[in-house]
Amino acid sequence: MKTVKIFLSEKDMPRKWYNLAADLPTSMLPPLGPDGKPISPEMLEKVFPMNLIEQEVSQKRWIDIPDEVLQLLTIIRPTPLRRAVFLEKYLDTPARIYYKDESVSPAGSHKSNTSIAQAWYNKKFGIKRLTTETGAGQWGSALAFACALVGLECKVFMVRISFEQKPLRKIMMQLWGAKCISSPSEETQAGRDILKKLPDTPGSLGIAISEAIEAAVSDTSGMTRYSLGSVLNHVLLHQTVIGLEAKKQIKMFGENKVDVVIGCAGGGSNFAGLSFPFIADKIHGKNIRIIAVESAAAPKMTRGKFSYDFGDTAEMTPLLPMMSLGHEFIPAPIHAGGLRYHGMAPLVSQAIVEGLVEPLAYDQVKTYEAAILWSKTEGAICAPETSHAIACVIDEAKKAKAEGKEKVILFNFSGHGLMDLVGYDKYLTGKLDSYSLPESELNKSMESFKGFPPAAKRKTGKW
Amino acid sequence: MKTVKIFLSEKDMPRKWYNLAADLPTSMLPPLGPDGKPISPEMLEKVFPMNLIEQEVSQKRWIDIPDEVLQLLTIIRPTPLRRAVFLEKYLDTPARIYYKDESVSPAGSHKSNTSIAQAWYNKKFGIKRLTTETGAGQWGSALAFACALVGLECKVFMVRISFEQKPLRKIMMQLWGAKCISSPSEETQAGRDILKKLPDTPGSLGIAISEAIEAAVSDTSGMTRYSLGSVLNHVLLHQTVIGLEAKKQIKMFGENKVDVVIGCAGGGSNFAGLSFPFIADKIHGKNIRIIAVESAAAPKMTRGKFSYDFGDTAEMTPLLPMMSLGHEFIPAPIHAGGLRYHGMAPLVSQAIVEGLVEPLAYDQVKTYEAAILWSKTEGAICAPETSHAIACVIDEAKKAKAEGKEKVILFNFSGHGLMDLVGYDKYLTGKLDSYSLPESELNKSMESFKGFPPAAKRKTGKW
Repeated sequence: MKTVKIFLSEKDMPRKWYNLAADLPTSMLPPLGPDGKPISPEMLEKVFPMNLIEQEVSQKRWIDIPDEVLQLLTIIRPTPLRRAVFLEKYLDTPARIYYKDESVSPAGSHKSNTSIAQAWYNKKFGIKRLTTETGAGQWGSALAFACALVGLECKVFMVRISFEQKPLRKIMMQLWGAKCISSPSEETQAGRDILKKLPDTPGSLGIAISEAIEAAVSDTSGMTRYSLGSVLNHVLLHQTVIGLEAKKQIKMFGENKVDVVIGCAGGGSNFAGLSFPFIADKIHGKNIRIIAVESAAAPKMTRGKFSYDFGDTAEMTPLLPMMSLGHEFIPAPIHAGGLRYHGMAPLVSQAIVEGLVEPLAYDQVKTYEAAILWSKTEGAICAPETSHAIACVIDEAKKAKAEGKEKVILFNFSGHGLMDLVGYDKYLTGKLDSYSLPESELNKSMESFKGFPPAAKRKTGKW
Repeated sequence: MKTVKIFLSEKDMPRKWYNLAADLPTSMLPPLGPDGKPISPEMLEKVFPMNLIEQEVSQKRWIDIPDEVLQLLTIIRPTPLRRAVFLEKYLDTPARIYYKDESVSPAGSHKSNTSIAQAWYNKKFGIKRLTTETGAGQWGSALAFACALVGLECKVFMVRISFEQKPLRKIMMQLWGAKCISSPSEETQAGRDILKKLPDTPGSLGIAISEAIEAAVSDTSGMTRYSLGSVLNHVLLHQTVIGLEAKKQIKMFGENKVDVVIGCAGGGSNFAGLSFPFIADKIHGKNIRIIAVESAAAPKMTRGKFSYDFGDTAEMTPLLPMMSLGHEFIPAPIHAGGLRYHGMAPLVSQAIVEGLVEPLAYDQVKTYEAAILWSKTEGAICAPETSHAIACVIDEAKKAKAEGKEKVILFNFSGHGLMDLVGYDKYLTGKLDSYSLPESELNKSMESFKGFPPAAKRKTGKW
């Protein structure tokens, strides 16, 4: 009988998070304020609690996970490392395919690794409530779940079109006690302004971010902060438990090396979570390919620019050094909502610039094809984001077969697709469209970079 | 740090299923044919493959799990045994609450334990396709999933009202390759007859069963069989891996006894899966309470009658000796669709008659209250069926506190509620009704027993 999964016991959970910033060959560029000068930590303290800001700017390689966070993480961790023996058999490939199953948690994805940590640090700092935005709802539900566990109020601004099209995600948040509001809303100045101008707008993540930040910083009690589910350094940091666990587990499978690490990448957090501990190995000389898979509809890594850019449409965030399509980019309505963001986390962007990470873009029709094959062989129904990683895994496994070479592939099964079945229905009924960003739209979107300082120069690659 | 969960490794999976029939103090009554005489195995062979019929009538205590079934089961097993430390803390109870988490599988419940086994045995027997019925969709998706794994065609007759109200379950089945049809349909004589008489009927499980059986037995190629997701002996047998694993795991938690075992019970399969190995201990002298929790809206165990009755409304099945409300019982539209069945599995019914199992009925408003408390402390969102077990667990834990006594409680977390969030929404918005079966309806439904032979006499209890 082939071993299909390896569990870790709770006592073998990582006790520290890994900070890639400490190991990157070039040190990270600082975020800039509206004046083009590096911002100080104090400038963020109305938005985030100081204990998280310290993590955001930390250069320490290892950061302790507090015992109470560790206890809360036992609700969702350790997650199993699984081997896709049934898919391997179907593909008749000499590749061995392993995946970290981050879907087995109440909110259904890796997002809770950071929502639990962020909720706990905010609570510790004396904060009473958190605000955030959510698109498709993965992050909003993960934060609602975490706030229920630690005892914080939670308000989620959900993009109006998703609020209406995905009522189930809203119910999830509400049953964990969060308030979920359609954005734009009457609750903030930003929301009211937009509603006056565009009463029928479907909303956007950009608007929802503006509302969530405003709702946090405008609370005069000082007891409210804002929480972000990807992109920032401390968010990626919290996700590194994924890769740290995977390293132990893949050894327990008897593997002494990994050839390829693959993750889908929207803002970068699940990809970073699995890959950063392996990128560390690569920096220290190991021969590993690290592939980040994005959507061809939002190809910031393969066709964007490494530059300073805003994290949101409304230009409320600091300028971050990142691969971006420009913060005015309007993504096509692909089903992988988590891959529609215009930018890539600074840490991941920097790793691409350094030549440590190889980006690839996939079209959604191909990724659904991969997801269906996965479901019929391995059983599980993956999130539309995760399907991008799976499509790449299948290509790598086929290559291994063509070359007649053994290969150890590891990828992140970042979430299940049970709340996103409508995309599958479209695929099965032949109604799903391909979508690759046209050159004209790319050029138009990139205009929003005008006047921004260029970021670091790439050392390698084709940019 | 408190241990929250114990995993088993795949090599520690049970290699045999446990058959309670071998240990029950009184031997089981046989199913009867339309003539009132015991049916022979051969009379079932157009409906089920002979290898499963052999299991159905087996008196052997242990039945080997074939290696190939074991390998397929690794997709979903072993499941974790978890301790509800956060709920315990909230309740401030001296009770220790453990639960077997059967929700962590692609189809989301314990149902796949038998769907995988049944699909494999049918395939082994040379069968090409399976038919079944489904109400809310849990069973239909579990069978679709299993058929995808072993390579069988699958046709699911889904009760029309659910087919329309729960389109997501239908998509799940379709993406695993199954054909999901609204019942009543034009595909069977039974369906056409009903449609002529009642074109606007919402459908019923009774009609869907008739259609699924007809579709199987009327295939002249002989290559189609029917599959049932609960009630029958072989179905319950396949579920006993739950309790067998739990026994090993609870020892690994350091517990040397279990005081109370709790499961919700609709047709009886998840309850049997966890409890039968513990009922064996009880028969052999251990002091354990075993509680089966049903819905107050379909109280066959607490207010029904132990008698011979049909498994379906249309009287197509053999007569089974079971606790029943009468096969013409029309259940109220409670959200726990899996608890609406009119009868209880013969093996569970017999265990009640013997005084080995204690039945309790809960109203759905109380169970949703329990489910919400669960979500806010333990995180996971449970299925509406599972919430019945949780409500009882909370009562038991409160009793332990009132008595100031330590108590080890074990229950079955039979499935997640991600496909059933609408009931939560109703509860949260104050629109969920209590529903306890009125005496008048009970009496009316019980009239359908007239003329059936009485079954065994109860030795104990209040009937």
